[in-house]
Amino acid sequence: MERFEVTYRLFADDQADAEGRAANIALEDTVEIPRDVVPSGYIEDVVLGRVESVTPETETTWLGRISYHIDAVGRELPQLLNVVLGNASILKGVKAIAFTPNEDIKARFPGAQYGREGLRQLTGRKTGGYVCPVIKPQGSSAEQLAKLCYLTARAGADIVKEDHGLANQDAAPFRERVKLCADAVNRSNAERGDAGETTKSLYLPNIGGHGDQVRELALYAQEAGAHGVLLIPGLLGFDAINRLAQDPDFKLPIMAHPSHLGPYVLSPEFGYGHGMLFGDLMRLAGADISVFPNHGGRFGFSIGECEEIVSRCHSEDGLGRSILPSPGGGMSLDRLGDMKKLYGEDCVYLLGGSLLRFGDKIGDAIHQMRTALDS
Amino acid sequence: MERFEVTYRLFADDQADAEGRAANIALEDTVEIPRDVVPSGYIEDVVLGRVESVTPETETTWLGRISYHIDAVGRELPQLLNVVLGNASILKGVKAIAFTPNEDIKARFPGAQYGREGLRQLTGRKTGGYVCPVIKPQGSSAEQLAKLCYLTARAGADIVKEDHGLANQDAAPFRERVKLCADAVNRSNAERGDAGETTKSLYLPNIGGHGDQVRELALYAQEAGAHGVLLIPGLLGFDAINRLAQDPDFKLPIMAHPSHLGPYVLSPEFGYGHGMLFGDLMRLAGADISVFPNHGGRFGFSIGECEEIVSRCHSEDGLGRSILPSPGGGMSLDRLGDMKKLYGEDCVYLLGGSLLRFGDKIGDAIHQMRTALDS
Repeated sequence: MERFEVTYRLFADDQADAEGRAANIALEDTVEIPRDVVPSGYIEDVVLGRVESVTPETETTWLGRISYHIDAVGRELPQLLNVVLGNASILKGVKAIAFTPNEDIKARFPGAQYGREGLRQLTGRKTGGYVCPVIKPQGSSAEQLAKLCYLTARAGADIVKEDHGLANQDAAPFRERVKLCADAVNRSNAERGDAGETTKSLYLPNIGGHGDQVRELALYAQEAGAHGVLLIPGLLGFDAINRLAQDPDFKLPIMAHPSHLGPYVLSPEFGYGHGMLFGDLMRLAGADISVFPNHGGRFGFSIGECEEIVSRCHSEDGLGRSILPSPGGGMSLDRLGDMKKLYGEDCVYLLGGSLLRFGDKIGDAIHQMRTALDS
Repeated sequence: MERFEVTYRLFADDQADAEGRAANIALEDTVEIPRDVVPSGYIEDVVLGRVESVTPETETTWLGRISYHIDAVGRELPQLLNVVLGNASILKGVKAIAFTPNEDIKARFPGAQYGREGLRQLTGRKTGGYVCPVIKPQGSSAEQLAKLCYLTARAGADIVKEDHGLANQDAAPFRERVKLCADAVNRSNAERGDAGETTKSLYLPNIGGHGDQVRELALYAQEAGAHGVLLIPGLLGFDAINRLAQDPDFKLPIMAHPSHLGPYVLSPEFGYGHGMLFGDLMRLAGADISVFPNHGGRFGFSIGECEEIVSRCHSEDGLGRSILPSPGGGMSLDRLGDMKKLYGEDCVYLLGGSLLRFGDKIGDAIHQMRTALDS
């Protein structure tokens, strides 16, 4: 394909109205000038978005496919998002629901470094879902957090993820915390190796700091012995993930957290579709694992929305490597069985606050998670 | 005040339900663990959000004031936004509508460098609204864009703003474009000075590039003779503005563009209030000028929502200096009179695509804008 495509759900009165809306988006997200003043030649033929089709979906919605040329983007992800849903994000009745890359996009945005297959190798877990405790709460000292890291890793956690609220507060500054926690997990990994275990824990600290410090902090974490990082694109921008994923000096997997991204998916009438945001865009940015709120927890995602996310993360024909979905948000041990039926093996199962009820016996909770996922 | 506050609009069934929702937000955006496992002492007393009041607003809404301690934040804006509306952004029925800083916040986030008064000095325009043409479309060469800069500046534009879609595309790469455009505006300013004019044009290029290049590109623009920059917090993060506003080496005003931010305000039931996003948060980040879509244009903001934005930008008791609102989005010359009645003098009036209809006589459009604003 010469151009990449975005599919939008358009709320409209009739076919003509829907076609008008599609034409407006093609203008809005590229040249942003009235149609009658678009210069002929290169700008009209190449830069301007092109409506490929507008087809009825329901009584009130149409699907509009709009294609764009890489020349409207350049090489940077922020401008790609400007084209996909920049000013059009302010339009009601326009929802971007699918991204179809072409070769130009794939060449400039190759996707995840590890993805689904890579995580099997990094953890040594050949089959089964991944057990992922979340280390918290903020306000704890670095020593207290490191102790939780050790206990959960020692009990067999596959991924030890920091809470996204562990930033760079005085109670546990980033550098001090990451060093202690990485040491704790690596000590546990050594002990597991000595005991003959073939799996190990990956420790993923949350990159807490300024947006322009992401690279510096991520390289520090790598140097300190961490095995990946957690990033929040809703606060740092999707480009923060992309820059790290494409950085030749950074060689660890990236987990994306949905904090501050809620409004993009909560309305059926604007923003992104669930699969597009937590699947397509995360793959485009280069995340290896995409965290999202599970249905039936504190947040209101439906089963269908969660299934769409998983499908877009796993899809073999999406951009780059397929990646791992990671449902969380108020999960408890007794829900793991049902979750496993829905999400299957290629999934990172998050369990956070409820683990703290186990106190120093938090390792027992990890064992129970493992049992529930393997049964 | 020992703590800063966020006011949330809560959709609830009754007072008890509203209080429960407020308590959940206080947990969600700080410790993110169940209430019964919050450790006593420092974490419970200081780190945990505190519900200060929950009062009925309408039959279906309540106003919840929640206070937070700076210790839950640290010194970086991303984590402050995590506390204000991180995971809570994923909750329906929760809308953050006002931010009340305390001394801790003001010390760490001092706000705009120039603001309303500073822009009067920088432009030399002692009274009246600011005329701000938008230079576009993308796909044009740097020379073509520089010509538009010269013509609009020479005709008396106060601010010459680049379109937010001018990023770093091959047609007009950032560095080449900024140098040519800055030269054009500075040549015009010299000619205006020779002609005895006491005002000058500020050229504000759009920082098009990677999120971690913002400082480098902004300093390049400053060095090249630009008079400010345009930044897109919806793509680069609000921290990108804040870092630049607090950078001792960067001494120019910052204009914030709303691209990709729409979903935060489009629903009455989640995200941010219009005044909070385009007023409070822009001031917190350190923007001097806040662009937003005018009512009655291509976007659907109401007059009341626009008035709220202006009020929060101008308010003397908000964080830091008061700043300039900047309505745009499909405006035309014949609407300027009505806009002036609504927005008054301390406002940057954007006019974009429709100016291109004037072709080489675009200077005439600038004169007409000036006349409409001064009549």
